[in-house]
Amino acid sequence: MAAYSSMDKNTLNEEYNKLSQAYEAYKAQGLSLNMARGKPCSQQLDISNDILNALTPETDFKAPDCPDCRNYGNLDGIDAAKKLFGDIFGVDKKNVFVGGNSSLNMMFDTIACMMELGANGENPWNQQPDRKFLCPVPGYDRHFGVTEYFGFEMITVPMTPDGPDMDVVEKLVSEDASIKGIWCVPKYSNPTGITFSDETVRRFAALKPAAKDFRIMWDNAYIIHDINDTPDKLLNIFDEAAKYGNEDLIFEFCSTSKITFPGAGVAAMAASENNLKLVKRRYNFQTIGYDKTNMLRHVAYFKDLDGVLDHMQKQRAILEPRFKMVTDTLEKELSGLDVACWTNPNGGYFVSVDVLEGCAKRVVSLCKEAGVVLTGAGATYPYGKDPKDSNIRIAPTYPPVNELEKAMDIFCICVKLAAIEKICK
Amino acid sequence: MAAYSSMDKNTLNEEYNKLSQAYEAYKAQGLSLNMARGKPCSQQLDISNDILNALTPETDFKAPDCPDCRNYGNLDGIDAAKKLFGDIFGVDKKNVFVGGNSSLNMMFDTIACMMELGANGENPWNQQPDRKFLCPVPGYDRHFGVTEYFGFEMITVPMTPDGPDMDVVEKLVSEDASIKGIWCVPKYSNPTGITFSDETVRRFAALKPAAKDFRIMWDNAYIIHDINDTPDKLLNIFDEAAKYGNEDLIFEFCSTSKITFPGAGVAAMAASENNLKLVKRRYNFQTIGYDKTNMLRHVAYFKDLDGVLDHMQKQRAILEPRFKMVTDTLEKELSGLDVACWTNPNGGYFVSVDVLEGCAKRVVSLCKEAGVVLTGAGATYPYGKDPKDSNIRIAPTYPPVNELEKAMDIFCICVKLAAIEKICK
Repeated sequence: MAAYSSMDKNTLNEEYNKLSQAYEAYKAQGLSLNMARGKPCSQQLDISNDILNALTPETDFKAPDCPDCRNYGNLDGIDAAKKLFGDIFGVDKKNVFVGGNSSLNMMFDTIACMMELGANGENPWNQQPDRKFLCPVPGYDRHFGVTEYFGFEMITVPMTPDGPDMDVVEKLVSEDASIKGIWCVPKYSNPTGITFSDETVRRFAALKPAAKDFRIMWDNAYIIHDINDTPDKLLNIFDEAAKYGNEDLIFEFCSTSKITFPGAGVAAMAASENNLKLVKRRYNFQTIGYDKTNMLRHVAYFKDLDGVLDHMQKQRAILEPRFKMVTDTLEKELSGLDVACWTNPNGGYFVSVDVLEGCAKRVVSLCKEAGVVLTGAGATYPYGKDPKDSNIRIAPTYPPVNELEKAMDIFCICVKLAAIEKICK
Repeated sequence: MAAYSSMDKNTLNEEYNKLSQAYEAYKAQGLSLNMARGKPCSQQLDISNDILNALTPETDFKAPDCPDCRNYGNLDGIDAAKKLFGDIFGVDKKNVFVGGNSSLNMMFDTIACMMELGANGENPWNQQPDRKFLCPVPGYDRHFGVTEYFGFEMITVPMTPDGPDMDVVEKLVSEDASIKGIWCVPKYSNPTGITFSDETVRRFAALKPAAKDFRIMWDNAYIIHDINDTPDKLLNIFDEAAKYGNEDLIFEFCSTSKITFPGAGVAAMAASENNLKLVKRRYNFQTIGYDKTNMLRHVAYFKDLDGVLDHMQKQRAILEPRFKMVTDTLEKELSGLDVACWTNPNGGYFVSVDVLEGCAKRVVSLCKEAGVVLTGAGATYPYGKDPKDSNIRIAPTYPPVNELEKAMDIFCICVKLAAIEKICK
């Protein structure tokens, strides 16, 4: 099909009427479909159910570094869990802190720690009222929420297919000491699905921030979350940072939320000795320790990194057809019309669609009326404000494939309707 | 035996020499005994092991308010867990927030919330540099640690057998708007083991603080932790506060850390609608939700309050002889000597001993030399400073009874040695 922009008004009107009929027909079905949040589906959770048998009343709860994993203690986790996460991160276990069920909470606590204690001899961030944080866009709404909560002015940086625009990042960070950090999802980025190129990682590792207390929040949420045979490779940022003595710049995070259970996984952080010492100054007052039985449960279930990677193949088997359904439908329905572009990721949890400028809200609202819930337009930008009103995040993981098919059909109809409305206005 | 203070120097010297011989004999055994922390013993943990069978791969993870307890969501916990904790607290489930594995963490987060957001239209506490917190002494070192971390000046209030001295509390709180709160362990207080009298609870409930953002941190850690046939009864502070419209004054906490597993229990908070709304303004950015499988595990295991109370009888069976060993030994060895007084609690985790002024550090250090680790002298006071250097907290739960017997013998010898040293100085 030809680009809408090249069609005359009459042809577009005809197309609009045809689309409207299809839209109304869907609406009449009273559907309730959800592509809003990056939530695993029940099938994905079922494949981890045996983890509930990993600990039994007969389990020996001893660990080399813990006389009884049921009891208090081990602020930064048990050694076996540090080893497992160290292998996932590609860092030594001595650089790992294993925590509770939420890496978001761990990131929140890390920012809170810098707010209260500061770093590198600088004042705590809460005593630096003019504090700013870099937010690559489109990005993850909950990241932006944390820095909004803590009173940062959020500065957007455009995402490219290679990661955040590093020319912009380097310029801002080297010139402005009030910029205290940057949010990154370096692999299968939320929502664009791209993975930072080797050059991007190297430039992050070599950053020379004006602020001595600048930190990179390296949220490696999808570190082993491949969905096809051509997975992306991400350079290990700690290896690169070591070349510049820049290890203190980085806090890296991941969790098993999208490996085992979203609500009952284990979160972990990789950081330099200095940074671990810093966060422990706060954790030491905050808690006696996190749930070590759940750490033990995960270690007993997976045994080692190979066990985790095998498990991820089962996740992939469920996710691959869903992502394929989404991108195939986009290709089939929207290709050549010049009304949208989208990503085709090799992993992660999202497909990112850019519709015509000024159309995202309209698409989301049309979808909603027809029973298809999408992530709110703008959610991928700080303060929920997409200046071009064009980005929409699609989360293909939760609905079953047949629902996804219907939802994507409706979505494409709405994208086209909104585009024609815009062109003919 | 007569009081040491009434003995002549020669008799005391003889006594000292005899005690020293006994002390050296113990020292020669190279013991390693620990009465330092309120940590359940392995036997206590074993009685909860069946909770690990409460969830299996075949479990239905649905709840009326949650389509899948393994997945994300339910920021304030699942309804069934709110009901169970509501029954433990004696409040409606709508006033309950169920969290992670640590009530300490929940208290820390609550203080952090007031630091960052404030309450009742007042400035956030971190914008009130002259902030103070009342700390009944002796009290719980980790409470004091939290307010120390957040930069409060800590004002001590003497504990009485009925709870904190309410004349002091009322006077301070009504006169000084910079006093923002008070730490309380209202039942089987840490470390004195006393339970606040009805009058004390009523006076707390009726407080008229000068600070509109004053909060009572009601850490009901030992809410159902009785150890004998004459348990204490604590008035329900929310019932009393309702009579004065004072529900917003109170945050109440408890957990199953000393019911099931210290490291893998569930913590909960009871609070007014206003206070829950306030803390959720922060939690909403902090996490997507806590471990709901562990909530479900606890609900499935206990069924209801009766199930929890039955379980506590098993805890009691283990703890009662340990406490009896401690207080019997104190009675047998120290009674009449006028060198110490101690508490004889009906529940909780501690026996509190007051030795002669200026002797606590000496006793702790003598014990340590003989292989008996006690909570550091002073730990029960803010900043670790007991102005009289007389309070020592004994934690009878962890060591087996035979070790406890030996440890208490050594302890009593050290108390006597230190007393004679002081008297003869």
